[in-house]
Parts: sequence; C-alpha cells; structure tokens
Amino acid sequence: MINKNDKYNLIMDFYEIALANGFIAEKMENCTAWFDMFFRPMPQVGGFCIMAGVEQLCECLYELEFDESDIDFLRKEGISEQFLNYLADFEFKCDVWAVPEGTPVFAGEPIVKVRGPILQAMLIETMILLTINHQTLIATKANRIVRAAQGRSVVEFGARRAHGVQAALLGARAAYIGGCTATTNAEASKLFGIPLYGGMSHTWIQAFDTELEAFCAYASEYPDNCILLVDTYDTVNSGVPNAIEAFRREVVPRGYRPKGIRIDSGDLTYLSKKIRRMLNDAGFPDCDIYASNSLDEHIVKEMLGHGARVDCFLVGERLITSADAPVFGGVYKPAAIEKNGKIKNCIKLSENVSKITTPCPKLLWRLFDMETGKATADLLTLENENISELTEYELFDPDYSWKRKTVTNFVARQMLVPIFQKGKCVYKFPALSYVRSYCAEQVDTLWEEVLRFENPHNYYVDLSLPLWKEKQRLINEIRKR
Amino acid sequence: MINKNDKYNLIMDFYEIALANGFIAEKMENCTAWFDMFFRPMPQVGGFCIMAGVEQLCECLYELEFDESDIDFLRKEGISEQFLNYLADFEFKCDVWAVPEGTPVFAGEPIVKVRGPILQAMLIETMILLTINHQTLIATKANRIVRAAQGRSVVEFGARRAHGVQAALLGARAAYIGGCTATTNAEASKLFGIPLYGGMSHTWIQAFDTELEAFCAYASEYPDNCILLVDTYDTVNSGVPNAIEAFRREVVPRGYRPKGIRIDSGDLTYLSKKIRRMLNDAGFPDCDIYASNSLDEHIVKEMLGHGARVDCFLVGERLITSADAPVFGGVYKPAAIEKNGKIKNCIKLSENVSKITTPCPKLLWRLFDMETGKATADLLTLENENISELTEYELFDPDYSWKRKTVTNFVARQMLVPIFQKGKCVYKFPALSYVRSYCAEQVDTLWEEVLRFENPHNYYVDLSLPLWKEKQRLINEIRKR
Repeated sequence: MINKNDKYNLIMDFYEIALANGFIAEKMENCTAWFDMFFRPMPQVGGFCIMAGVEQLCECLYELEFDESDIDFLRKEGISEQFLNYLADFEFKCDVWAVPEGTPVFAGEPIVKVRGPILQAMLIETMILLTINHQTLIATKANRIVRAAQGRSVVEFGARRAHGVQAALLGARAAYIGGCTATTNAEASKLFGIPLYGGMSHTWIQAFDTELEAFCAYASEYPDNCILLVDTYDTVNSGVPNAIEAFRREVVPRGYRPKGIRIDSGDLTYLSKKIRRMLNDAGFPDCDIYASNSLDEHIVKEMLGHGARVDCFLVGERLITSADAPVFGGVYKPAAIEKNGKIKNCIKLSENVSKITTPCPKLLWRLFDMETGKATADLLTLENENISELTEYELFDPDYSWKRKTVTNFVARQMLVPIFQKGKCVYKFPALSYVRSYCAEQVDTLWEEVLRFENPHNYYVDLSLPLWKEKQRLINEIRKR
Repeated sequence: MINKNDKYNLIMDFYEIALANGFIAEKMENCTAWFDMFFRPMPQVGGFCIMAGVEQLCECLYELEFDESDIDFLRKEGISEQFLNYLADFEFKCDVWAVPEGTPVFAGEPIVKVRGPILQAMLIETMILLTINHQTLIATKANRIVRAAQGRSVVEFGARRAHGVQAALLGARAAYIGGCTATTNAEASKLFGIPLYGGMSHTWIQAFDTELEAFCAYASEYPDNCILLVDTYDTVNSGVPNAIEAFRREVVPRGYRPKGIRIDSGDLTYLSKKIRRMLNDAGFPDCDIYASNSLDEHIVKEMLGHGARVDCFLVGERLITSADAPVFGGVYKPAAIEKNGKIKNCIKLSENVSKITTPCPKLLWRLFDMETGKATADLLTLENENISELTEYELFDPDYSWKRKTVTNFVARQMLVPIFQKGKCVYKFPALSYVRSYCAEQVDTLWEEVLRFENPHNYYVDLSLPLWKEKQRLINEIRKR
C-alpha cells in the first residue's frame, strides 16, 4: 500500500547514512568490518526462537540501490556530494551469512553475520534487523501456539489486527513456518502458497431473516466445505440446533459430510464439550469443532488441560502481533574492524551487563549427540577453529567458567550459511513448505526441558576457549584505560 | 519489500470472498448495507485513541481492482465464474465516511462508516480494519508518550523493531500525527516530510582507536549538529569528559555550540542529572541531553517525576509496536441491510455483553461546551436526527438509563466526514503537519480527567433516545425467538 510501486531504499536510521558520510570523510569507507546480528534473552517467548525472514532480507539487499529521488532527498539533509556519488553508483559488496529459516536459535549467538566495507555493512543495519526481527518474532509465537495445540490444527487469522498490510502478509508467512496449517489471508495464500481457510462471518447470518435460512443458504453453496458459525444469537439454544438442521437439509442429501462448527465467544471449553455431545447425538461425530476468540498458547494449553473438544484453533491478534511480547530484541553490532591491514576486535561494554557484546569474526556451531540426535549445545568459535574434526570437546559456561562438561560422540554442524558472496546472492531458497517441515524437525532435536513454555532449561550457548580469552582480554584492556 | 512492484488486492480474509460469492448465488449482492467500524474499550491505552490511517485507507479503496493473477488464484479456490466476472469488472460503488485523522475517538462509536452494495461493503472489511487499527494504535501510543514528556521533544526511533518495512513507515507517520517531533527513519522522512533526526551509533566509536578520536572526527564533520553518544565504554568517567573535550576542540573553534549528548543505557535519571552538572560546569548549559533505551510514557513520566534533566526522548520499540497494548481491537459490523426495499436494522448479540453491537445507520456527533470549548460528550443518533439545531439536549447513559444530564449552550459537530461518494474519493487530504497540529488542538478540548493515563474519566458516548429504543426493541425481539 502507500504507493505500492515505490521502492523503499532508505529504510535506514539516518545515523547510518550520516556516519557512512563520515566514514567517507575519514577515508575509512573501505575498511573491512564484521558485524553480527544477535538477540538478547527473551524470557516471555521461552527458551528459543524460530529464525525467519531470511528470504525477504535477501530481497532487500538484492534490490539495494539509490535513485534520483533518494539522492535529492539526502542532498537536502546535508549529505556530501562525494557520498551522494558513492550512492548513485552503489554496488553491494558484502558477504552475508544467515541461519536458515525455520531453525531454532538462541540468545547471544550470531544469526546473521556480515563482512564487508564498513560503510556498506553499517548502512544495512536497520534493513537486517527489521526483516529478521519481525518474522522471527511471529514464527516463534506461532511455534509456541502450534506446540500448545498438541497436533490439532492452528489457522492464522490475524490480518485485521496486524501492523499494516505487509505485517499481515509476512506474518502469515512466518506463522506457516512456525507450524500453522493455513491462513485466512487470501493474498498471503496467493503470494506464498499457504493453504487457505474460508468459513463464514456474522455478517452473512445477519443478512438473512433467520439464522437457519442463513445456514441453509451457505450449506447449499458450500456443501463440501461447510463450517458454520453458531454464536450470532445464542450458541446452544439456536446456533447449534440450526446448524445441525442445515447439515441435514443441505449437506447430507448432496452426499457430503458436514465439515465443522465454529465458536467465537462464550466459554469455549464448556461450549466445545457441549457441542461435541450435540453433534455426536445428531450423528455427526466426524464434524469438527473450530474455536476462535483472542487465543494464544496459554489459553490453548489451559483449554486442552480442561478437556476442551476443539479440533482446530483459529488464532488472530495475539499471534500476528505476538501480543504478550511484541518486540523482538535483535541487535546488530560490530565484531571486528580491519584498519591499515590489522584486524581490531570490537567489544561494547555497558552499565547493563547483558548489553556487553562478544568480539571477533566467528563461527556458530551446533553440537548434536550422535546417539539421541538431540542438540547438546551451541558453540561460538573463532573463524580458524574447526570443531567438526574433533571427537571430544570441553564446553564451559562463559559466565561461570568452572561449570564444565566434556562432550563426545557428537556431530558439529555450522549453522551460518552463506547467502551473499561479494554482494551476489548465492542462496537457493527452499520452498516454504520445506522450511515448515524443517522447522518441525529441528524443534524435535531440542530436549523437552528446552521446549518448556515456562522456566525452560537454559540451553548452552558457549564460547570456545580462544574466543573467551580474547573477550576477557578486551574487557580488561578497556577497564584499565 | 516482498516484491514492491506487486499490488496486493486480495488483502481479505477468505470468508469475505467466499460469502461475497454466496451473495451472488443468492442474488443479494446489490442489497444496500450499512457497516460501522468501531473499537471496544482498551483500558491499557487510556480513555481515548487518536484516529489515523484514513489516507492509506483511501489509497487501498481507490486502487481496488482485481487482475488476472487474482482471478486465476480465486478460480482455483472454487470461486464461481459469475463472481470472477464481477471481480474482473470490479467498480467500487460504496459511500464511505471517516472521522478525520488526528481526532480523539472513543470506544463504541463509528469511526468509519460504509454504505453500499453488501457484497462490496463486506469485501473491504479487512482492508479497513488493518489500515485504521494499525495507525490508530501507534498514533494513540505516541500521543501518550508526547503528553508524558510535558513539552519536551519525542523522536520516533523504532524502525528496527517494527513489524516490517511498512509498519516502520506508517508507524513513523502515525507517531508524527500523535505529536512526535521527528523520526530517525530516512524513508519515512522522505515519504511523509517528517523532520529527520540523525545522531551517532556505537559502531562509529568502535571503528576508531579511542573514544576521543571518534568524537573529534564526528564533531569536525558535523560541528553544527553535534550530538555525541557517551555510553560505549563508561558514561561518566570516559564518555562525557571525552565529549566535552571534543566539543572544545572541534565545535567551539568553528563557531558553533555543541548540540547534545545522548545516553542509551544505565540509570537515565541519575545520569542525566550528573551529566547536566558536568555540561554546565564545562560552560555548555545550552547543550541538550538526549535519552533512549526502551522508553514509554510510564518511564518518561517516572523519570521526569524524579527530576531527570532530559531535553529529548528517543522512543523506539515500545512506541512502534505499542508494546504494552499491541492490538487495536477495531471491528467492522453491519448496522442495517436493505432487502426488497425494506431496511432491516442489524444487531449481534453475544454471551460476551461487550460484543453486542449498536444497530441502525447512524450519525456521530461531538458536543462542545460553548463557554469552555471542551468536549462534553459524543452522541450517536439515527440519520434523521439533527442535533446541531437544538439548544438543549438530555443525555443519558445507555446502560444505566436513569443517569441523565441536560446540556445547553453547546455546539454539536458531526464527526464523520465523507471520504468516498458512490465509489469516488471526495476527501481532500490535509498536510500531515496540519493533521499533527489539529490533533494537539483536539486533544486540548478534552477535560484533564479524560486525559489521565490511569483510571481516566469515562467520557460519555451516548445514544439518542430513538436509537436506544430501537436497540432495546431488537434485543427483546431476538431474545423472544
């Protein structure tokens, strides 16, 4: 929307541009820099997140260029002609790595890594964060709701409460990665091939003189896919009996079975049990019950714990906004900068200890136990360390380094894969349905204790000894100044 | 992003399409229907909201058409050829009214009203909700933060944590309407003419060998607009003294005054007081202090209550996502439907009493006291009631109808203005800067008790007697069935 034909090249916080301009003035624009995107612990979303948004990030970077209107705008904001010329001839030159979409990721580890001219690597900060933060947030929330539903379907139904058209579309995409079975958003289905869910609204019922008339009209139009919404006037006394009558008059005679009944208000757990009995008594034990109304993983878990007979949850506003944790706190920080041929590792100290960064160009490894197939720990190392060749490795807690554990019989997998090399996109994007099954499969590699919603086990994200030592050295060096 | 050149015509929940298809099958597609968008009480956001998003809604409706790819997609989803032909030749025919952007609006009143063929009026449900829900949410949050800042500047700084590119752009727009002074988002500034805020990031400082060197390089590049970020290593012992030194070396000798110091971590209130003294002692009492770090109206209010010496608040993630209330609960419901020449008023009952709708095509009035200029109450009436001609009016509480109050000496203003007539856009959009001042001016018409953040006075949104009677009649009629 806005003007859909416009391109948005300046999705940047202005300081990125002002500082890029400064790097040119300092003749530092071509110093190679390494940046990491990582996120800080998010207790509200549990022990891990689901990576998403990499494909859209590639689209942003792939299309990155600056047109005349951008240049004119920046000129008025006081940007130098020298930098404007640079932008007019902009050619993206960075290497970019990312953890593939659908992978569980943990706080403190690099999930996107950039290496390239510092000017360029810094200019794309907001683009990277914006794209990954949003979809990772929604994929994570969806995955929690899907796990709470214990194998029942979860349909994404949030477009109307999303933060704009694009949040609705990409939110539906992320929700599908996280495990939702379908979306109600027609455009998202068209764009991404996500299965589409239909159904009816109260308007249809209000447009007819009686509820029964409305149900019969709908059932005769859609006998093969008939899900009726029963709470417009009185769920138990009018909605369900009328729905059963409509199924008998218009669905069964046409050779179909009724597909479902949806409830959207009232005590969903109580109603679902009552409706289950009514449908069974009417000879429709195969007719599913759909429930909606401000659901999330906590309510779904609570409902099923109390024996709700729901076959499909339609989840809207609390999924598409990740309502109880709507901010994904991904940040993008320099890890090292090469100046005059020397690599200087970077650290940021802070009064808030959680804001201290981990320096150095690095690799991210996940260690899988060969016997169980389960993920044991993630490990950050320097770029020259090759963990995959080792048969034994001693892990230690970076904060409490006396906590140690030696692992054997493991496979170490590198989690960051190249998506851009010297500015060219090199990643072949898997189909979205593949990403969705890959996600389910990878979540399965996590121990139950990590999967817990509340107070999950703190999965190990450790540093190799050389990396840990370099971090301590930098902290002490700065503290000494 | 996604593919920026694509148009998104199918931003619809699929039931809207499936039911539209059903209306054609029932030959009801041209029945005139009246729909209202309104929102339910949102205690977390206070007593009122700030309307926003009308211009983008117009863009959606103005451009509404269906291309071959849309038609092909819907054909595969089982939509009838008859309806596909309708869509191929789609011509928007509805009348649409909306409350102008920047106006304070209240729960339960129509803020968008649509009259037109039921098929079309229903098809645009998700578009209307999506557009208005998002921006109204952010404008409301921004207005709260701006009021908490008591005249100090508030800069929108949230792009990286927004729910996608569009949420960042339109969020910046809505924040500006709500009273923010600037944005850090370059594209939003370019698109909407919002003043742009620059500044620096930690990366700049980390790219140099020392903090002082980094500050001096920046100050010499931007002596006229020099705001230095002082918390990279140690705010009080290193950041501020180095900033003062850089001001003295690179700003003052060039004939400028230092513009500001920004703090982004630590105890902002304590630090701001300490830094104020350090700057004053250094001879820079005119150098402003900028603060950022997960701020919102509650923290800003608390900080100022404890004497924080902050001149400008940079507000990011909690503004751009409205973090403590990220869902704006606007809904879109039929008020009346004309069938066979007869208007049938619509009501939706519900187990949840707050979900009962108000029937009838209606007008929305705001009554201003002529002496104080303050808004006394909002009033919903039938379309044939003209309140503006009356000199005395008896208001009563629709739930507790014995609560009555007679108002005199008032001006009654109609709040819904036409934006589309017979499918043609008729609204001339005011400049965004005008909308922003109009917003401030209209918020000023509310009593202090309504403006309170916690437990605000419940502003009256009353029904006229004829409207109230019709609502009671419909409730009783349905209950009797």
